[in-house]
Amino acid sequence: MYTRAGVDIVAGDRAVELIKVAVRSTQGPQVLGSVGAFAGLYALSGYESPVLVASTDGVGTKLKVARELGRLDTIGADLVNLSINDVLTTGARPLFFLDYIAVGRVVPELIEALVSGMASACREAGCALIGGETAEMGDIYQSGDFDLAGFVVGAVERSRIIDGSTVQPGDHIWGLPSNGLHTNGYTLARKALAHIDIDSRPAPLCCTLGEELLATHPSYLPDMLPLLEQGIPSAMAHITGGGIPGNLARTLPEGLGAVLEWGSWKRSSIFDVLQEHGGVPVSEMLSVFNLGLGFTFVASPDRESDVTDLSPTAIRVGTIQTVGGGKPRVEIRGLNV
Amino acid sequence: MYTRAGVDIVAGDRAVELIKVAVRSTQGPQVLGSVGAFAGLYALSGYESPVLVASTDGVGTKLKVARELGRLDTIGADLVNLSINDVLTTGARPLFFLDYIAVGRVVPELIEALVSGMASACREAGCALIGGETAEMGDIYQSGDFDLAGFVVGAVERSRIIDGSTVQPGDHIWGLPSNGLHTNGYTLARKALAHIDIDSRPAPLCCTLGEELLATHPSYLPDMLPLLEQGIPSAMAHITGGGIPGNLARTLPEGLGAVLEWGSWKRSSIFDVLQEHGGVPVSEMLSVFNLGLGFTFVASPDRESDVTDLSPTAIRVGTIQTVGGGKPRVEIRGLNV
Repeated sequence: MYTRAGVDIVAGDRAVELIKVAVRSTQGPQVLGSVGAFAGLYALSGYESPVLVASTDGVGTKLKVARELGRLDTIGADLVNLSINDVLTTGARPLFFLDYIAVGRVVPELIEALVSGMASACREAGCALIGGETAEMGDIYQSGDFDLAGFVVGAVERSRIIDGSTVQPGDHIWGLPSNGLHTNGYTLARKALAHIDIDSRPAPLCCTLGEELLATHPSYLPDMLPLLEQGIPSAMAHITGGGIPGNLARTLPEGLGAVLEWGSWKRSSIFDVLQEHGGVPVSEMLSVFNLGLGFTFVASPDRESDVTDLSPTAIRVGTIQTVGGGKPRVEIRGLNV
Repeated sequence: MYTRAGVDIVAGDRAVELIKVAVRSTQGPQVLGSVGAFAGLYALSGYESPVLVASTDGVGTKLKVARELGRLDTIGADLVNLSINDVLTTGARPLFFLDYIAVGRVVPELIEALVSGMASACREAGCALIGGETAEMGDIYQSGDFDLAGFVVGAVERSRIIDGSTVQPGDHIWGLPSNGLHTNGYTLARKALAHIDIDSRPAPLCCTLGEELLATHPSYLPDMLPLLEQGIPSAMAHITGGGIPGNLARTLPEGLGAVLEWGSWKRSSIFDVLQEHGGVPVSEMLSVFNLGLGFTFVASPDRESDVTDLSPTAIRVGTIQTVGGGKPRVEIRGLNV
């Protein structure tokens, strides 16, 4: 049920033709494909008391980097993975995804690149791509400009929702490494690094600035699924806009806070470049960028060996402590702001 | 779980503050509001074998008309209602809605106007507004420009999906009146009528051109619900881009077609203005605009009195017939193309 709106119907139809195979490759028997001229249908099963978990997002001005580098095949995966991570924080697995692409002019190959990237990330996550809309609006978008938004729906058994309510003082905080900026802070990063050629390799980067900036937002589903199956995490945070303090804090109950040890995890070199070449102050870095952690979760200390067994990439980054004043807060020891 | 991305965090937070009450007013006990820092949660219940029905859409360049008239409080309702009508075609009722708003610069009052419109339409439909994203992207959107996309999820009992499979020759085709262009064909309409002052009242309009163009896309849920409860419709179409022929045809099974009687329903004067003052050829009118019917459905002739009793606005507009060649097609008798 991919549709197109706008003026160039031939281009729109060609775009739909080009993405057909990729879209179908994401769909299992739960997608009722023969119905639904106007909507996508997904048969929900296997839940006793299902809670649907939904999120919508965009990739922000990472779009601009992708355009500048002429690489549009990964930005769709960024969108899918970031959406999956959002619903994952509640304990939900993704069921299906829909996309909205708005363009100045429908170029079928652009749509194909974007949707192929989404389809590939959806396939890896076992998430069906069940619909999308391509809107052609030459009056709003400049000819080469476009925007895309994604919508994901997941499900979790009501009794297995992760909401931070069982977090205890002394619990461990674990982090999963990020591979760059993911999809946050691009407006700031592009401004701060505007004086550096995107094809150059400023120290200490090991690939070009453009390649670093375009690194695909990873899905943390494969890391978290074995832990979720064992009921290990009691709170999870996706580190997006707001950085580590902002996102971690909003998953903790009143009266508790997080103390992290700066240096217990590595951060990719792009953050050094932003700080040194871009002159972004540490305080701003902290509230805008993920600074090396893409996802965090809390677990009881007696599950420590289970965590390291089941999720080898997880790093212990801190501890839960009681805080005065009630409101959850995050302290990063050893980081001079 | 309304979030904002972008630069002006103060404006973003103020926007979230302004919409809080409107958003909450749409949420019943099925929305698990205390969870979900990153996503919206909706407890699904009352279905034996639930099928989720999802759709995403935008309002196209009707946005430009709203901006030109400085009336941004109805465009959100357009978005919600058109999405609801899409999922309604399968027999589903809307459960929840999420929005994506992209702006050049976050103006809290703009976000408030847009989201209030959505919330009000959601409330009327018993659909919860459970999330949204406001993305600030000055590099992509001109300062006053914006775009919005909506995402709706509904549910239908698997055994009650409406898919056109039981449509028979001789069945009646019913139409529900449109109140204008709804959300389709605005790029064409604005171009065709560019020479007419938007505040003027070209004959035979009874209000200004701008007011006619901005008439809110209605939800057909109240008209259709009593019919659905009685199991009356066997196929439903939302008349959007593609017009009556395009949309009606894609809801019929192979071997059947629709014969409509031109003149059996009225069309609003805006269509006369488009044809007479705008010089849009009839063939193009037919494939772009709804020409007076916003929604159609098929029902057995022996349910005729039930239809007129339960849905007083429904008009009998045609009959289902067998067609040679297999592919469903729509003929409009009496319309000279």
